[in-house]
Amino acid sequence: MPSQQGPAEGTVAETGEFGLIDTVTRHRTQPGHTLLGPGDDAAIVAAPDGRVVAGTDVLVQNVHFRLDWSSPAQVGRKAVAVNLADIAAMGATPTAVLVGLACPGATRTEQVTELADGMWEEAVRAGIGLVGGDMVAADQIVISVTALGDLQGRAPVRRSGARAGDQVAVAGRLGWAAAGLAVLGRGFRSPVTVVNAHRYPEPPYAAGPEAAEAGATAMIDVSDGLLADLGHLATASSVAIDVDSNALVVDQKLIEVSSALGADPLAWVLTGGEDHALAATFPAAERVPEGWLRIGTVAAARDGGPVVTVDGEPYEGPREGWQHWRG
Amino acid sequence: MPSQQGPAEGTVAETGEFGLIDTVTRHRTQPGHTLLGPGDDAAIVAAPDGRVVAGTDVLVQNVHFRLDWSSPAQVGRKAVAVNLADIAAMGATPTAVLVGLACPGATRTEQVTELADGMWEEAVRAGIGLVGGDMVAADQIVISVTALGDLQGRAPVRRSGARAGDQVAVAGRLGWAAAGLAVLGRGFRSPVTVVNAHRYPEPPYAAGPEAAEAGATAMIDVSDGLLADLGHLATASSVAIDVDSNALVVDQKLIEVSSALGADPLAWVLTGGEDHALAATFPAAERVPEGWLRIGTVAAARDGGPVVTVDGEPYEGPREGWQHWRG
Repeated sequence: MPSQQGPAEGTVAETGEFGLIDTVTRHRTQPGHTLLGPGDDAAIVAAPDGRVVAGTDVLVQNVHFRLDWSSPAQVGRKAVAVNLADIAAMGATPTAVLVGLACPGATRTEQVTELADGMWEEAVRAGIGLVGGDMVAADQIVISVTALGDLQGRAPVRRSGARAGDQVAVAGRLGWAAAGLAVLGRGFRSPVTVVNAHRYPEPPYAAGPEAAEAGATAMIDVSDGLLADLGHLATASSVAIDVDSNALVVDQKLIEVSSALGADPLAWVLTGGEDHALAATFPAAERVPEGWLRIGTVAAARDGGPVVTVDGEPYEGPREGWQHWRG
Repeated sequence: MPSQQGPAEGTVAETGEFGLIDTVTRHRTQPGHTLLGPGDDAAIVAAPDGRVVAGTDVLVQNVHFRLDWSSPAQVGRKAVAVNLADIAAMGATPTAVLVGLACPGATRTEQVTELADGMWEEAVRAGIGLVGGDMVAADQIVISVTALGDLQGRAPVRRSGARAGDQVAVAGRLGWAAAGLAVLGRGFRSPVTVVNAHRYPEPPYAAGPEAAEAGATAMIDVSDGLLADLGHLATASSVAIDVDSNALVVDQKLIEVSSALGADPLAWVLTGGEDHALAATFPAAERVPEGWLRIGTVAAARDGGPVVTVDGEPYEGPREGWQHWRG
């Protein structure tokens, strides 16, 4: 029942669920994959090859983003991008996203509209639509995105297919989001290219299917940090991975920022998460596709030995990686 | 970085994301639709007819459920059931669910395990698997479930297809969840069949595809209340609907409970939400399928007139229905 006072003007409580859904979905153009968009009990998305790739990621206010550091539109881009990166990491092409949004009743309707604008911006960048979802009341903003994708007849590229002798390669930026977070954490707002890399990743979506076409044996989305995620891949594949630090590109921008902050730029590249680059393994004899950079090699697992090494040694430097529930 | 103290024993912060995911997914049997289950960047689900039906619903602690009224397992069942009902309401058969779970670090690991047990219980009841998801830290428990489904070659049954002259029918229980909520709200815990109807719905999943096969012209999941959801269907179809209150079955149990609480059982049936029955329209000449109960008729829309009436009149009785953000 409406309260005596009525909800505050311009808030989601005033706009109501149905008004909000209308605001967020009206005047949007759905691509061809979207056979039925928002407004019914569920959406319908094309799954041309008879299989659908599906992944869910959740972003929580003040855990995964801060609205004093990122605009709602940037948070929206990020929420969609991190999910689409998971689809690309299977070697699939994204086809749609669904969004579950929980937020306080006092949230400005404008903020939700901007969040949706950012989601749509990233969706359009990937050639897909926001096809459905749900909006509910909560104490804190929680954004759950489910992304769908199509394998276009290819076998999925799993984490478990790397073999001794394979080469390891990455596509996309590494260390940038960690550098941006470090800048923001010190109270700065520039350089904006670095800070924006924390606000939203720009995953190389096309590199996933291209790697699959080129015979990638295993692939993963770099969300926790390069060494952590190569560790997941190596463990799933029962192999060891050695990273050649000289092969890693540390951008001049990161070197400048790290020098200003007294930080280690290689630590950002090796252990910083949230850039959502892709890491994959390819047979030794194959050329890695354009846009991929060879950064290491796969060896047989050593009993009790480290799963991932850098230049032949366990990495002992500083770490930036993400630990859930550990603050 | 781990804090100095370390997280409390037996909490999700102590178990950690990867340990939790292992706890929740280990020893589970995936059905045939699940081509690749949890553990990789994304799951892969069969989409036999080249389309996938997809819907997302979010449940928030103390908004959609209370852990002093429902066990974690009951909340898990509910979270999955409300989503699968949306799939059924399109005339589709569920194939998979993905779960985004946000919860405080101090949540007992056991609670998450029980929640997952409940989700799996409902998933198995529907013949599907929990194929993927994400677990993150938040101040409050927020459960976002995305359900996928297959149309088995049929056209989807949308909300917009009802035509003047059609008959209206429902499958599943109505008013039970509202009665259960009323009982709990007065501090009682029985009768348990009524109270459990609030704790988790038992949607008639098979009735959705059966209605589609029988030529249903429109269909909706009754989540907000019969009159509210028939209103959505009527509006989408640009028709009017009249409900024949004599045709509605008010179970003896609801009459007993309403009499004990001094409530109106017909108001529960007409306006109580969260039972996730299905409401559909069928051509006048068709027999409604077994399990469906004819409760009204579709007429042409009247300019400025009410969209839904009961026995020819606008409903003026008490209301139980759900208002988002209006508390």
